[in-house]
Order: sequence, then C-alpha cells, then structure tokens
Amino acid sequence: MMVLITYDVDTTTPEGRRRLRKVAKECVNYGQRVQKSVFECLLDPAQYADLKHRLNKMIDLNTDSLRFYLLGSNWKKRVEHIGTNESYDPEGVLLV
Amino acid sequence: MMVLITYDVDTTTPEGRRRLRKVAKECVNYGQRVQKSVFECLLDPAQYADLKHRLNKMIDLNTDSLRFYLLGSNWKKRVEHIGTNESYDPEGVLLV
Repeated sequence: MMVLITYDVDTTTPEGRRRLRKVAKECVNYGQRVQKSVFECLLDPAQYADLKHRLNKMIDLNTDSLRFYLLGSNWKKRVEHIGTNESYDPEGVLLV
Repeated sequence: MMVLITYDVDTTTPEGRRRLRKVAKECVNYGQRVQKSVFECLLDPAQYADLKHRLNKMIDLNTDSLRFYLLGSNWKKRVEHIGTNESYDPEGVLLV
C-alpha cells in the first residue's frame, strides 16, 4: 500500500536537520522523497508497522510530528504537482 | 472532497517565509493546518480549481513545489499522527 509520510521538524537547528536526514534515509528505502519532508512509501502492513516504530524513536516527540496517510489504490491519478521537480534530491540532482 | 496540500518552500529566507504565510492564509480558509506546510482542505471541484490557480500565482515555480492529494471518502480512518499536537498553530496556541 502507498503511504504518504509528512514530517514536521524545525530545520533551523542542526539537531532538526540531523533528524530529517535520518527520517529521510529510512523512508527512501521504501519509496521516494517528493518534497523536503514528504515521502511516498510503498509498504506492506508489517513494513508499515516496523517503519512507524523506527521513525517514532528517531523524532523528538515534543517538537516534531509525523503524519501517515494511507492512500487508496488509485492514488497516482489523484495527485497533482505544481512547481519545481517532483523528485526531491537534497544534492540537487534529478532523481529518475 | 478532502484535499491534502503539501508545500515545499525554503523558509530560511524572508521571501520563503512570506510565501508560506500567504499560502497558509489561503489554505486555512478551507480547512486546517496540520503541520508547518501541510494543509487538509475541504473543497468542492470549483473551489479546488480556484485555490490551485491562486496558489500557483503565489509560489516561486523555480524553487518551490506544491502537491495536491485527493484523499478518499474514508480518509479520516486512514491518517495516523505521531508527535506534537495535530493542529499546527504558528502562534503556539492549540487550535481546537
């Protein structure tokens, strides 16, 4: 199933940027980074539970938040994108 | 229909922060801000087209991106949240 994961973190601090890097590293194992802190991950139920558990331990629960949206089967038809490229790459190289 | 809007913008610049404020102001007319740059908006098709058009003019298409996810009818059952409070308020007061 496709799970959209959005991560709210303060990236003005080195600790926040470090947490974002860690969360991104986990998420891209299962999908792609479509914005700086938005990930589309293809997961089975066991992977989903496992990923949530690991992310939960990485973030600062007092300042950060994670949201998980289970997208329906036709999710690709129901996404629109405006602006700069759809695949986010912090190194500035287009991911294909 | 419920539309999830995610906005990727560089908030280290005053211009980026200004654009985020403008986008947020538009989006909260139709729903709530659940993270710093994530909005859940209840829109009919005409409102959706109109909002997209207005947001498109607000953002910097070369650096920013907007993604729109049309969530299904049972979307509330398919959202999970971890971490700090679910309603984001830049002034730090809990929205209810």
